[in-house]
Amino acid sequence: MNADFINPFLEALMNVLNTMANTPSQPEKPFLKKDSKAKGDITGIIGMAGENIKGYLAISYTEPVILHVASQMLGETFTEINDVVVDIASEITNMVMGGAKKTLSEKGYQFGLSIPTTVTGKNHIISNKTSGPTIIVPFKTEIGDFFTEICLDN
Amino acid sequence: MNADFINPFLEALMNVLNTMANTPSQPEKPFLKKDSKAKGDITGIIGMAGENIKGYLAISYTEPVILHVASQMLGETFTEINDVVVDIASEITNMVMGGAKKTLSEKGYQFGLSIPTTVTGKNHIISNKTSGPTIIVPFKTEIGDFFTEICLDN
Repeated sequence: MNADFINPFLEALMNVLNTMANTPSQPEKPFLKKDSKAKGDITGIIGMAGENIKGYLAISYTEPVILHVASQMLGETFTEINDVVVDIASEITNMVMGGAKKTLSEKGYQFGLSIPTTVTGKNHIISNKTSGPTIIVPFKTEIGDFFTEICLDN
Repeated sequence: MNADFINPFLEALMNVLNTMANTPSQPEKPFLKKDSKAKGDITGIIGMAGENIKGYLAISYTEPVILHVASQMLGETFTEINDVVVDIASEITNMVMGGAKKTLSEKGYQFGLSIPTTVTGKNHIISNKTSGPTIIVPFKTEIGDFFTEICLDN
């Protein structure tokens, strides 16, 4: 997995958060997920499956970050993760994947998408079992950090 | 989504739990996931993506059920959800999907698979946002209940 494949996800994510939620974010140094257990309170996951590509994108937020993003997107104040906030997380995953898929398709990566799922639950952990690499990219915002996980087996 | 598509998952699941974990299970009446919020402590999720198929399979267990299954499969006693138990949940998702995919492929359903993810976290909830139906099938075992969620948008 190279930067060519990763960058479209990061760019799409920054773009979505910036334009839709007025929340600038900055990617930090990516690292390989090995024994690290990144925990989130809400995570959007979407699977990719193509002839030569198997993988997923996960975007995990702490509660304060997603509440801020949802509040900014809808112009009302959210103080807990409710159904609307879950929908927002789902929608962001969709938009990020949509943007990344378009760019990747132009670069010759072809794949289909599963239906996005959103997991809510205090401090949950996402694991996988694959021979391929899983890259975690932490993001910084003024409200706090969140992270993106990109897993690819090709 | 019809029984033709659902049944291979249920049969594969019963078969895997029975033969690999010596844990007979019985499906109960399926229902449409709407506002219901089924909660689990550990969930294996795998996405499906094909030309005319988008969806996922999720298998959610409470802690006592997965600990029993893992203990039966490996012949040692597990008292908490650790990395080995997470691997077992992942492996079961894989085997069930593998079995179902084979049967479905013979029936003409063609799709690729994403990489399975396993979510751990007390009482987490899986949500989705799709126009297609999501079917929840509860299963009964002598240790307790667990459930399977099949979502298909085609």
